[in-house]
Amino acid sequence: MSKLSRYSPLLYGDSIETKRQEIKEYFHNTFDLFEKVFEVLKDDDVFYKKSEITRHPMIFYFGHTATFYINKLMAMKVISQRINPSYESIFAVGVDEMSWDDMENARSNWPEVTDVRAYRNRVRELVDELITTIPLSLPITQKSAMWIILMGIEHERIHIETSLVLHRQMPIELVKETVDFPICTKSSKAPMNELVEIKGCDIHLGVEKPSHALYGWDNEYGAFNQDIPDFKASKYLVSNGEFMEFVLDGGYENKELWSDEGKEFLELTGVKHPPFWIFKDGVYKYRTLALEIEMPDDWPVEVNALEAEAFCRYKENKSGVSYTLPSEVEYRAIYNQAQIKDIPDFHESRANLDFYHYASSCPVNEFDFHGIYDVVGNVWQWSRTPIRPFDGFKVHEAYDDFSVPTFDEKHALILGSSWASSGNLITKHSRYAFRRHFYQNAGFRYVVTNTKDEEVADIYESDELVSQYCEFQYGDTHFGVENFAKSTAAIASKYAINRGKALDLGCATGRATFELAKTFDEVEGIDFSVRFVQVGAKLKSDSYVAFSTLEEGSLATNKKVTISELGYDSLKEKVSFWQGDACNLKPNFTSYDLIMATNLIDRLYNPRLFLDTIDERLNKDGILMITSPYTWQESSTKKEFWLGGFSDESGKEVKTIESLQTVLGDKFELIHREDLEFVIKETARKYQHTISEVSIWKKK
Amino acid sequence: MSKLSRYSPLLYGDSIETKRQEIKEYFHNTFDLFEKVFEVLKDDDVFYKKSEITRHPMIFYFGHTATFYINKLMAMKVISQRINPSYESIFAVGVDEMSWDDMENARSNWPEVTDVRAYRNRVRELVDELITTIPLSLPITQKSAMWIILMGIEHERIHIETSLVLHRQMPIELVKETVDFPICTKSSKAPMNELVEIKGCDIHLGVEKPSHALYGWDNEYGAFNQDIPDFKASKYLVSNGEFMEFVLDGGYENKELWSDEGKEFLELTGVKHPPFWIFKDGVYKYRTLALEIEMPDDWPVEVNALEAEAFCRYKENKSGVSYTLPSEVEYRAIYNQAQIKDIPDFHESRANLDFYHYASSCPVNEFDFHGIYDVVGNVWQWSRTPIRPFDGFKVHEAYDDFSVPTFDEKHALILGSSWASSGNLITKHSRYAFRRHFYQNAGFRYVVTNTKDEEVADIYESDELVSQYCEFQYGDTHFGVENFAKSTAAIASKYAINRGKALDLGCATGRATFELAKTFDEVEGIDFSVRFVQVGAKLKSDSYVAFSTLEEGSLATNKKVTISELGYDSLKEKVSFWQGDACNLKPNFTSYDLIMATNLIDRLYNPRLFLDTIDERLNKDGILMITSPYTWQESSTKKEFWLGGFSDESGKEVKTIESLQTVLGDKFELIHREDLEFVIKETARKYQHTISEVSIWKKK
Repeated sequence: MSKLSRYSPLLYGDSIETKRQEIKEYFHNTFDLFEKVFEVLKDDDVFYKKSEITRHPMIFYFGHTATFYINKLMAMKVISQRINPSYESIFAVGVDEMSWDDMENARSNWPEVTDVRAYRNRVRELVDELITTIPLSLPITQKSAMWIILMGIEHERIHIETSLVLHRQMPIELVKETVDFPICTKSSKAPMNELVEIKGCDIHLGVEKPSHALYGWDNEYGAFNQDIPDFKASKYLVSNGEFMEFVLDGGYENKELWSDEGKEFLELTGVKHPPFWIFKDGVYKYRTLALEIEMPDDWPVEVNALEAEAFCRYKENKSGVSYTLPSEVEYRAIYNQAQIKDIPDFHESRANLDFYHYASSCPVNEFDFHGIYDVVGNVWQWSRTPIRPFDGFKVHEAYDDFSVPTFDEKHALILGSSWASSGNLITKHSRYAFRRHFYQNAGFRYVVTNTKDEEVADIYESDELVSQYCEFQYGDTHFGVENFAKSTAAIASKYAINRGKALDLGCATGRATFELAKTFDEVEGIDFSVRFVQVGAKLKSDSYVAFSTLEEGSLATNKKVTISELGYDSLKEKVSFWQGDACNLKPNFTSYDLIMATNLIDRLYNPRLFLDTIDERLNKDGILMITSPYTWQESSTKKEFWLGGFSDESGKEVKTIESLQTVLGDKFELIHREDLEFVIKETARKYQHTISEVSIWKKK
Repeated sequence: MSKLSRYSPLLYGDSIETKRQEIKEYFHNTFDLFEKVFEVLKDDDVFYKKSEITRHPMIFYFGHTATFYINKLMAMKVISQRINPSYESIFAVGVDEMSWDDMENARSNWPEVTDVRAYRNRVRELVDELITTIPLSLPITQKSAMWIILMGIEHERIHIETSLVLHRQMPIELVKETVDFPICTKSSKAPMNELVEIKGCDIHLGVEKPSHALYGWDNEYGAFNQDIPDFKASKYLVSNGEFMEFVLDGGYENKELWSDEGKEFLELTGVKHPPFWIFKDGVYKYRTLALEIEMPDDWPVEVNALEAEAFCRYKENKSGVSYTLPSEVEYRAIYNQAQIKDIPDFHESRANLDFYHYASSCPVNEFDFHGIYDVVGNVWQWSRTPIRPFDGFKVHEAYDDFSVPTFDEKHALILGSSWASSGNLITKHSRYAFRRHFYQNAGFRYVVTNTKDEEVADIYESDELVSQYCEFQYGDTHFGVENFAKSTAAIASKYAINRGKALDLGCATGRATFELAKTFDEVEGIDFSVRFVQVGAKLKSDSYVAFSTLEEGSLATNKKVTISELGYDSLKEKVSFWQGDACNLKPNFTSYDLIMATNLIDRLYNPRLFLDTIDERLNKDGILMITSPYTWQESSTKKEFWLGGFSDESGKEVKTIESLQTVLGDKFELIHREDLEFVIKETARKYQHTISEVSIWKKK
């Protein structure tokens, strides 16, 4: 067993108590390992540095993996009390690659490392306690409360790997060697690469719920089949030595070898060699986690997908044979031919992963799997396949933006895991994908194949609920009821006194955010779900929204709406979209002349957390507009937190509008009420027809 | 352990395989025991006799418990293939007390006993196989497929007891003694009864999902609390000897002692003594299962609740002390004071139940529980409490009419179990209730109490889905859309050619059935759910419907609609309501001039089973009217059975209306199509607004 790491526990088992104990060990092992990763940073000051301009400073990640447990446990109502609402807001959003980030770099904006460490300990105690006490039956399923804890653990495992990459990108004087992360000391001349025959076969991807024995992310479930012919794959990962020829031959200067995206990347960054190569005094050296060493020619080169593709084209130009990166299905064929067993039957000594051998790459000819090397471990291997949902894909409601934002044909799969991978990352069915310009502990192997990839024509939103909202906001009107986003924005604009900055809270797919920008200087749209937010963001960035609307059974119509048709060309610089929790908004969302909360309050886990302080985010004469049909339901809001729709202890009926007057009365004056209908299409023949109440509140 | 019976298996356990084995043993034990009960019948001819005019002939019950497994497994989609559709229709409805029965007594209408026996064996094999193979995780919950099997087993356990009562009511020459069911041979003078002090306490009724360790029927879950003062309860069940005084003193002739319902019972039946007493040659003898014996004075008397109440009133008149039957809560206080352990910790040797000692009653002073006798076992004990749902009650979807039809304040609880009880019937939390005139192996003990029972004012339908449909059919209109039941009946009447008999299939709460009776001579309303059917039946029998409609959150408005307001006074003799499965209708539902299938086809588990033969039930020139929004969903209909709303193998979109034309085209002419809107209220602000398509088909 690895000194540092443990395998993910099985979902099955005979004894509840034994299972709790296994999960507890796995949790603490993960929490410990993550903290060991931060011991690589030289001192506390380094926590406030970014190693990459597009990423957060390291303190963010240090807090983030702990707050993730709390935020998910809160959202799923496993717990009802936060530990530190402020931390759980500022450390909340980690998908920084998507530019939802809005925190400055300055140390003063972030908590002290010691405080965050103390916070982590409190989270550790709480989660430990929950593992002992929450209801548990076996097997653990996606519906179990324990699933949320496993999700927190596997999320932390991902950050163990990505944080190690960020540390490796830090200026070398800011990091230090630690005993836990020893590098490989072997290296020699690169072996000559060659092609190995891989047998074609009918490949089935995807695991089944609930029979699979391991925790999986949403994108692993479902089914995808493809029958592929024989092909050839490189015996070894491409080594630094093999890649050197491309570099020395001017590969980075020869634009013909690069895709459009690759050319753009070269222009923006000006790179001339792989990221962990250092050109010094006429020779290339190599950066490990904390050291600069002689170039290890026989270790795998680490590049992004754009560089890997350029290398393939270079090799093709020289040989006349068409080289490419493997598809997802081809990789599985390689995996099968290599006769690899899945976790837990796989022994980590067989590959460079799970921190068993090294905290670095190692020679590409060290780990042999029946004639093909490093099928798993050493470094990840870029695929030419963008990540796509399998048939039957469903988001897990606790983390609905784990995969969906990556289903944009721009995120390519990385395959096989690296020395820094553990937990779910080293399991057979896991699927991780990054933008092609992104750096990880990732290199590549090439293939020679006749398989034609399926064309993916246009990207219609396939998420049923998001599509339903797209139709609601951008689609047709029904029963003579006007577009609701337009109506609410018009009412808000009418009652607003000043028209500087507006907040569209619960913005869903963003239509009202754009509509408000017709009268406001600046509008921010916030929704709890990134799945929704990204529709508005896409309309802003790509100038269109594409979705499908259900007509009958599973038959649907595809629709595409452009920013020009909508008349929003001139508005897109005024709007921005953010993920956020209305019950725990970040402090920077403030100074508004209007806050519009549309069909939001009866879906919050605790609406008082929103209402009690919302006045602080409004300017003088600011307007709060609340729109709601008051459809309280226990699945969204525990009954004790309902604002109305129940009888109090004396038997008196409590209506929501009365509670709003009580709660907001001290700080706001109610200046207007009206009913406003809306219609949401489910199919061509079935609609939700709702009458919301609009109430307009002027800040006193 | 009882020679004949086994305890219900625990839902919990560590080993899946062991649990399958336990369930398998319990299943076969139950199936065997049920068949042993029928060995009491002298020969196969007796299977075609009724022992009670309101009940089915015994062959029905013999088939019924087997078809129950299949019908429930089909409805829950655990299996997709029937064994014998005809049997599974004619043996389907067993709640004969509710008068849904429509089968004649003649032997010719029923299958042969040998054929039914062969059918039972096929069911036995299938269920055995399923117990081995269906997905299983522990604990078993209400959502498990295995729950449906446990439901089938516990259902059969109920019929073991009720069939023994029916056999005991058979003419004695039609039954025989068997070795499996030996009666008690002890009897002597009745002991003098006395009152025992029971300590008042705070009683909590109801078990929690999913923590309870045993299978439970829907009515056992939820919570009910009541704090009761001290009271007194009779030490013994009332014996034949004790009851004799009431009989000899003219208790059955003295109308003052009887409730209104009791007087009605006396008039209808003319009974003069308990049902298992036989007055012969000037003395009372006693009937056991298969024998006539000397009156066992010290055995408990068996009476219905009306007789038990009359006895209490008689005793009160004589003593000036107020005697009554125990309430449900008082019985639990007795149970607690008796320090009885629940199954499986209770040993059956401690009481006369589970077929451990006798297949008859035994002396009331044989089984002592800390000073009070027969708290469980011997005979059931009538309660004064009508069965009511506990807070948090929810039906189990596989058997939604198990309890709900009994929540009518007319079904009184029976407590404590009898010698013929086993399985769920002998568990602490089980709750069974019967109409007060009904006979079981039931007697009573009396109490002297100051506890005032809660008044239950009026009976508003508390079933949320049924209420929603009541509002839909009998409530207000919204968005200017006409009442749908009235509109469909009007369209049907317009296109009907002859106006003899009409069938309202999927009648829900029955409004359209009444509306059709305005133009048809006779209308039958059928729905899959008794919960719905009983609303129409109640309107017919009680001349009103009462329901509540949700307004905001959990706040509701109570509504009551009378038959006079609706203008249906003169129609009620023309309508009747039946439970039935549109995919497997009984043969007697035939000879219609109109069949109206309203919002039905997209909710059937296999709509082709309905469509392929429906023409056979129509008269010449008969009209089939189908109304549907075609909202196919996998939760109702497996996708392979959808009629439309999918793309076929060639990629062509298949619409439902096209499939209807294909399927019905040979036998029907499509004479009219129109769209018809309907609106279902969820709350005062939220509605389902749907556009169904009406298609009118004339039989060729």
